[in-house]
Amino acid sequence: MKLGILGGGQLARMLALAGYPLGQRYVFFDPSAEACAGQVGELYCASYDDERQLEAFANAVDCVTFEFENVSLDSARFLERHVPVYPTAEALAATQDRLTEKSLFQRLGIQTPGFMAVSSLADLRQAVEQLGLPLVLKTRRFGYDGKGQFVVKAVADIDAAWKSLGGVPLIAEAFVPFSREVSVVAVRGRGGDVAFYPLTENEHRQGILHLSRARAEDVMTAQAQDYAKRLLDELNYVGVLALELFQVGDQLLANEFAPRVHNSGHWTIEGAETSQFENHVRAVSGLPLGSTRVLGPVAMLNIIGTFPQRDEVLQVAGAHWHDYGKAPREGRKIGHITLTAPTEAELEANIAQVAALLS
Amino acid sequence: MKLGILGGGQLARMLALAGYPLGQRYVFFDPSAEACAGQVGELYCASYDDERQLEAFANAVDCVTFEFENVSLDSARFLERHVPVYPTAEALAATQDRLTEKSLFQRLGIQTPGFMAVSSLADLRQAVEQLGLPLVLKTRRFGYDGKGQFVVKAVADIDAAWKSLGGVPLIAEAFVPFSREVSVVAVRGRGGDVAFYPLTENEHRQGILHLSRARAEDVMTAQAQDYAKRLLDELNYVGVLALELFQVGDQLLANEFAPRVHNSGHWTIEGAETSQFENHVRAVSGLPLGSTRVLGPVAMLNIIGTFPQRDEVLQVAGAHWHDYGKAPREGRKIGHITLTAPTEAELEANIAQVAALLS
Repeated sequence: MKLGILGGGQLARMLALAGYPLGQRYVFFDPSAEACAGQVGELYCASYDDERQLEAFANAVDCVTFEFENVSLDSARFLERHVPVYPTAEALAATQDRLTEKSLFQRLGIQTPGFMAVSSLADLRQAVEQLGLPLVLKTRRFGYDGKGQFVVKAVADIDAAWKSLGGVPLIAEAFVPFSREVSVVAVRGRGGDVAFYPLTENEHRQGILHLSRARAEDVMTAQAQDYAKRLLDELNYVGVLALELFQVGDQLLANEFAPRVHNSGHWTIEGAETSQFENHVRAVSGLPLGSTRVLGPVAMLNIIGTFPQRDEVLQVAGAHWHDYGKAPREGRKIGHITLTAPTEAELEANIAQVAALLS
Repeated sequence: MKLGILGGGQLARMLALAGYPLGQRYVFFDPSAEACAGQVGELYCASYDDERQLEAFANAVDCVTFEFENVSLDSARFLERHVPVYPTAEALAATQDRLTEKSLFQRLGIQTPGFMAVSSLADLRQAVEQLGLPLVLKTRRFGYDGKGQFVVKAVADIDAAWKSLGGVPLIAEAFVPFSREVSVVAVRGRGGDVAFYPLTENEHRQGILHLSRARAEDVMTAQAQDYAKRLLDELNYVGVLALELFQVGDQLLANEFAPRVHNSGHWTIEGAETSQFENHVRAVSGLPLGSTRVLGPVAMLNIIGTFPQRDEVLQVAGAHWHDYGKAPREGRKIGHITLTAPTEAELEANIAQVAALLS
């Protein structure tokens, strides 16, 4: 089985490293010749809308999947005419526009913060009136890691917000006073079988994920899994999907979902019986899903911009180093560290120790 | 850090898969263009004594190590003149000749079965007299997986044994009535730091390893680790070393050692905090060693010759599939299955289930 992955970043790299023991081969498609997955497999280097290269890529593999969801739908549909593609272009479409995504949540009974489409300054003013302040103005398409967002805290910010983002389709979302941000990583096989990893609790810094802790027995688990299950079934989804949620009181509100493996699931490499990466490749290639059993206390810290002293980190008990082979650059995800420990108390002590080395 | 590995089989492949998360790059050197490690990294395809290619290989990497120890010493020494090589050619030399190896054991106070050099039919007759019957006649060099061996059970077998193996340097070893075969995998860093995996209990079939069980708290652990420590220190060894032992009564007798990662340590990928593969690449590249803590009950079954039904195996709880990407062929190691379980009783039940699928 030869798998093709659209996108050649760290997610593609980790998918391949998880899939090689299954005897699979990997081919990546990325516009950059420096794409770090190219260090561990074959790389097709071309623009995502280069149909000639997409066709050659499709013909070279048995199945295509994504590590990057902002590929044009035309490209995804073009590939679907040549080779099985999982998840489908339809599932991809549902995540590429925040308004479509939020409307889908609403239709499936998945609670969300209040939201409104914004296509003019007048719309934005009305949104402020209706949703209250603060609110978050976001581009409907191609936002990630906090990019393409503006927090409107006061009426006086409206003009600046419009100036900063206006001109493309926008969405205004009520800013909810959440107690924490959690995510659930779920996987659905070709035959409709579903498995869930436990809830992950996430801390962000400057809009980028900083720390994830697996919460094996969280009280909100059932609600999160129920939401994820609705999405998976509605989209007839195949592969891993991650749903990001805000907790407000004892309610979970859906923020967004990613049709792929997710940064908040990286802890599963060492922390679960089967990693999210292995389960994704199992799902898309039609294999039985693996157990999502958590092996013990586990957390993950992202390495952003520059590397800490590797040898110091490696001397922390239960520290696992992941260097994506990318050139360091400010604000760039270049690696992560998984921490496993026999007890939650030891885990917290080790998180503090590694977090200090990262800052 | 770019590591070069002499040999491009499954051990090289698993070394690379363990080393990629450390941000390392991998280059393999193998006479066969089909070498399965070539699927996951760059492959230099040339004869092990092609000095021109060896030099190009040495110049392309920062450090060289082995997955295959029967490279000529000339080649290893040639490489040492161009690039750091771990373990050293000297350590390699100690394992390439069974007589040298057994003499080293003897010198270090590591007990062995009785042995004698055999270079003539008269020597063999004398060995039978001195060591008793049965005895095992072996070629001193290039034997593996039971190849190059003849069990002399009766005086009447002597001529057949000589006819089968005579003409190259041989060694006769007393056949010991062992209760079990165990191995210990040890690792030594560039700075002399040492770590041990627990004892592994091994079952062979037709001279090929069939099943390994990690024995986290075995009573023979101290003796096995003491033996391994003597070898590591004597050879000023860097990397993973595996020592195979026979247990007779409450004594361990050394059979042989391998200057590399070892089939009986494959369970460490899922079963230990840090795998033997990661610890080998950490050691040879000068990184701190990782914890060898065992995570729970774990065993490994080899896949020899042909694959069992993959989906049936994957449905066994805690089964992890390893397909090396090699063409099936009788007697060939083409993969392995790791089994992890919450209890020893469940592990034994799962071993029985998977063993049935393998036969």
